[in-house]
Amino acid sequence: RIKASGLKLRFCTNETQATREKFVKKLQGMGFDISVAEVTAPAPAACRILEERSLRPHLLVHNDLVPEFAEIDKANPNCVVIGDAAENFTYANLNEAFRVLIGMEKPILFSLGRGRYYKETDGLKLDVGAYMKALEYACDVQAEVVGKPAKAFFESALAEMGVPPEEVIMIGDDIVNDVGGAQRCGMRALQVRTGKYRPCDENHPYVKPDAYVNNLAEAVDILLQQL
Amino acid sequence: RIKASGLKLRFCTNETQATREKFVKKLQGMGFDISVAEVTAPAPAACRILEERSLRPHLLVHNDLVPEFAEIDKANPNCVVIGDAAENFTYANLNEAFRVLIGMEKPILFSLGRGRYYKETDGLKLDVGAYMKALEYACDVQAEVVGKPAKAFFESALAEMGVPPEEVIMIGDDIVNDVGGAQRCGMRALQVRTGKYRPCDENHPYVKPDAYVNNLAEAVDILLQQL
Repeated sequence: RIKASGLKLRFCTNETQATREKFVKKLQGMGFDISVAEVTAPAPAACRILEERSLRPHLLVHNDLVPEFAEIDKANPNCVVIGDAAENFTYANLNEAFRVLIGMEKPILFSLGRGRYYKETDGLKLDVGAYMKALEYACDVQAEVVGKPAKAFFESALAEMGVPPEEVIMIGDDIVNDVGGAQRCGMRALQVRTGKYRPCDENHPYVKPDAYVNNLAEAVDILLQQL
Repeated sequence: RIKASGLKLRFCTNETQATREKFVKKLQGMGFDISVAEVTAPAPAACRILEERSLRPHLLVHNDLVPEFAEIDKANPNCVVIGDAAENFTYANLNEAFRVLIGMEKPILFSLGRGRYYKETDGLKLDVGAYMKALEYACDVQAEVVGKPAKAFFESALAEMGVPPEEVIMIGDDIVNDVGGAQRCGMRALQVRTGKYRPCDENHPYVKPDAYVNNLAEAVDILLQQL
């Protein structure tokens, strides 16, 4: 309905456990009209940065994300990229990423997101942000975060749509990463009361959405009514 | 020679990969006259705190440290204790410790030390401090550090000797954990130019030892000359 109305549309995800191809297939299976070209995701954003700055990464990411870095030179690494590596967050792999970092004159660490934790069917899991903090502390370095809520990430989505922020509305379920991040770029932002949403988000100490909606369908209804 | 002189003596260690028994045996094997009763170490200090506050820990520690907690009730845990768990720092174990913490109304996390990393024969390893930071971030909590440089840890060593801090000299190789920690308790502190010592320690931004000595034997010489 959004696409049919002529509005421009972009999907911004912090998904780093799968390539965009896999991610899009999953959403297509749920009935969404979505293609890879419409997705802004941390791994391709990181690849652009690596190329611009001639950096060769040591990767600590999920196996399923590795193909996103296929075109990137990874020999003799001069930076580290961590994503939500899940089962790849082993003691040995963390020590290896640490050794690569501490061996650099000035360690460069990229983190694909800064989430604290998330829920899977078998329970809560530590997210990439926790491992980012571990490496930051051990190496006395600050990671560069690629993904929501980083300003550069939202700005690349805006550039891909070719629209200024004041003409854009972000719809998301995460009060800090979706709503707060988009607002800091000058967009308006709606929070849906589904998914990651919790009632206590409505008393968040420093982020206030421009409006709440009960779900994504309601958000679409309201937006289309304004046209 | 220190003992023969009549001076009181206490060994303060952040060792958390072995019981005091194992640790003492290793030093005895090197020719040191040392007994378990003379050692101040993080695990027994943590046990005292757990008992005082009626806390039941979930342990994420090295297998060889577990016997130090033999007398402690660990059923239905209401806090988490992490040490340098080494190979026990698996993805599954970290998620489990995290779930115990996040399930508490007010998470309580104890960390046996706050080291960043250390060197073993097969290379650098992340120390407990890095994993402490990961759990702190994920649970939005501040860990209580047990061990050097915590003030309470040095104070318990002083209490065990029954001597006020101004009559005590700390000798150590770690500028922050040994020298800085002891000085904050009102002791004087010598740094030995062996072990962990690095020349750049002599330009440390905020810790300055009362004196440097080339090694432990020289420290003993100098102390005994003052008697």
